Amino acid sequence: MQNDFDAVLGAIEPVDRSLAEKGQAHLDNLTKPQGSLGRLEDLALQMFLVQEGQAPEADPMRIYTVAGDHGVNAEGVSLFPQEVTRQMVLNFLGGGAGINVLAETAGAQLYVVDAGSCGGTYDEHPNLIQEKIAPGTANLAQGPAMTDEQCLKALMLGVSLADRAHADGVKVLGTGDMGISNTTPSTALYCAYLGLDPESMTGPGTGLDKDGVAGKALVIRKGLAANKAAVESGDPLKILAALGGLEIATLTGLILGGARNRQLICVDGFISTAAYAAAWKICPTVQDYCVISHASAEPGHITAVNAMGLDPLLSLGFRLGEGTGAACAMYLVRSAANMYNKMATFADAGVDEAGS
Amino acid sequence: MQNDFDAVLGAIEPVDRSLAEKGQAHLDNLTKPQGSLGRLEDLALQMFLVQEGQAPEADPMRIYTVAGDHGVNAEGVSLFPQEVTRQMVLNFLGGGAGINVLAETAGAQLYVVDAGSCGGTYDEHPNLIQEKIAPGTANLAQGPAMTDEQCLKALMLGVSLADRAHADGVKVLGTGDMGISNTTPSTALYCAYLGLDPESMTGPGTGLDKDGVAGKALVIRKGLAANKAAVESGDPLKILAALGGLEIATLTGLILGGARNRQLICVDGFISTAAYAAAWKICPTVQDYCVISHASAEPGHITAVNAMGLDPLLSLGFRLGEGTGAACAMYLVRSAANMYNKMATFADAGVDEAGS
Repeated sequence: MQNDFDAVLGAIEPVDRSLAEKGQAHLDNLTKPQGSLGRLEDLALQMFLVQEGQAPEADPMRIYTVAGDHGVNAEGVSLFPQEVTRQMVLNFLGGGAGINVLAETAGAQLYVVDAGSCGGTYDEHPNLIQEKIAPGTANLAQGPAMTDEQCLKALMLGVSLADRAHADGVKVLGTGDMGISNTTPSTALYCAYLGLDPESMTGPGTGLDKDGVAGKALVIRKGLAANKAAVESGDPLKILAALGGLEIATLTGLILGGARNRQLICVDGFISTAAYAAAWKICPTVQDYCVISHASAEPGHITAVNAMGLDPLLSLGFRLGEGTGAACAMYLVRSAANMYNKMATFADAGVDEAGS
Repeated sequence: MQNDFDAVLGAIEPVDRSLAEKGQAHLDNLTKPQGSLGRLEDLALQMFLVQEGQAPEADPMRIYTVAGDHGVNAEGVSLFPQEVTRQMVLNFLGGGAGINVLAETAGAQLYVVDAGSCGGTYDEHPNLIQEKIAPGTANLAQGPAMTDEQCLKALMLGVSLADRAHADGVKVLGTGDMGISNTTPSTALYCAYLGLDPESMTGPGTGLDKDGVAGKALVIRKGLAANKAAVESGDPLKILAALGGLEIATLTGLILGGARNRQLICVDGFISTAAYAAAWKICPTVQDYCVISHASAEPGHITAVNAMGLDPLLSLGFRLGEGTGAACAMYLVRSAANMYNKMATFADAGVDEAGS
């Protein structure tokens, strides 16, 4: 399996920036002042590069919402009991969650993936992919959350999700997560990967009060100490296994696989961006293929995003996860592709260009 | 006509805030941590209030892109010749402009309105409303841009557009503009209404360089001096006539009419927000019915928006106008309505709520 994973990494290629001039020339020739559609023009150019200089295609688009549970929940880092992960998977399958509504509104397909929720298997459902690696992780405050083998399995599960989408013609991927307590491993990953401080990075998650946040920061500090060897190794895979989660590692694999497949990836919020941080540490080239969909209301998110030199597309105060921010970003991706493909040029429309 | 306009103003009622508790209770009962969909929840609640406590409906939605020319173009305040307004109207009718693509992507109807472009009438088109009040305004640097009568006609044209949409069942309106040089009157209106300074508020519009911006600020200062009596009167209608434009006054009327009709109004960028400023000065209650769709890249925009106590929904670096930012916001409005109407409650989905 390690060989398969290494083969994925070896096949991720940077976009060909020499194509940018051609894409930009097309954008500048459309009937609008140059650059006046801002981030939409950036998105269109990124898609043009990701898709190797072809007219950008946004559809079909697909969101994978990946579920996993976390042993660190035992430390009291969340207001919700761990059972809610499973209840929410059932809610996704019933069509009643935020991501169901926002994916449908955006015109994106939605698949739910069980990578590691507690409990047994679920009844079959056409939009459910059951690949449970373990029923939750171990408690990262006491040692590694995952074994290296579990982590690798999750990464390869993510790669397989990207490949399955690629086989179905999917052009744009969205990442989504569900896992009670998963802001805790995500915060730990940001601290380990980006040299950030638990006390400044820890936030309320689903609604902890000030004391709750302080306690959570202590748990994260304890986790960093309990996994000192992994953190100090600087090895992004060891860090991911030690401090991550099964859904997070799956999303890391999805990002890596999507980049290998030349798919554009809309990275959702706080948890998905931690998966992105892992992917970026493993293979910095993934940045060519990714969009940070939105700035989460979880306060550490923008710090982490900026520390990786990125700027979120939207800032709507979301802190739900599930892929809800990615769904909104995917709508803008479609708008960008349509702009590139459907607007008239100055010459075609008989519109004068700017004078000097 | 003044009586008709006064009747519109008299019929604008504030939303009933006592309904907010009911709408908020519904939002808080949906399967997500309370408030975790941020601005989308704010939008849903606003729609609930605007629509008098009914489950929010977003569709059908309609954008009016209103065209007008500006005598102040003679002062060299734009890189584009005035003919481009007319050329762009034809481009809108041909379907090749940015707003065509973004309105279609958002699922919003688009109507083009000639309130005051230079030249004669256009060939008939099912999406064109021809109500030219004058072929452009007078030069505001030398005196009033419009007569009080022209301004009132434009206001009532805007009201009639809101009414026509209302008769067609439209729930959400978007404002759009087309008018070469219209950042100049818009900036002048911000200065007059909000006590802001031409030098700090003037920006590059479609792409002026530093000297061009400085020259434009001087023209605006000159316009404020040439219309000193109107500015010092504090009468929002007199100020709008003196410094505005035919498309701007039409959009002011659209906002007032939409508020009277209990329609939600997505206000586009720099020019539309100047129309909003006029509407808000005429009748502050319009704020209950309006959303500032996005922060324009035109630097003074966010200053003006914040000066009115508002916060734009999106910030995508747009500076195109036409209603392009409104189109993107309208997609989020639909997402908000769907969230309110289609998400499962905790009880329905069998999901545990947060503990203490």
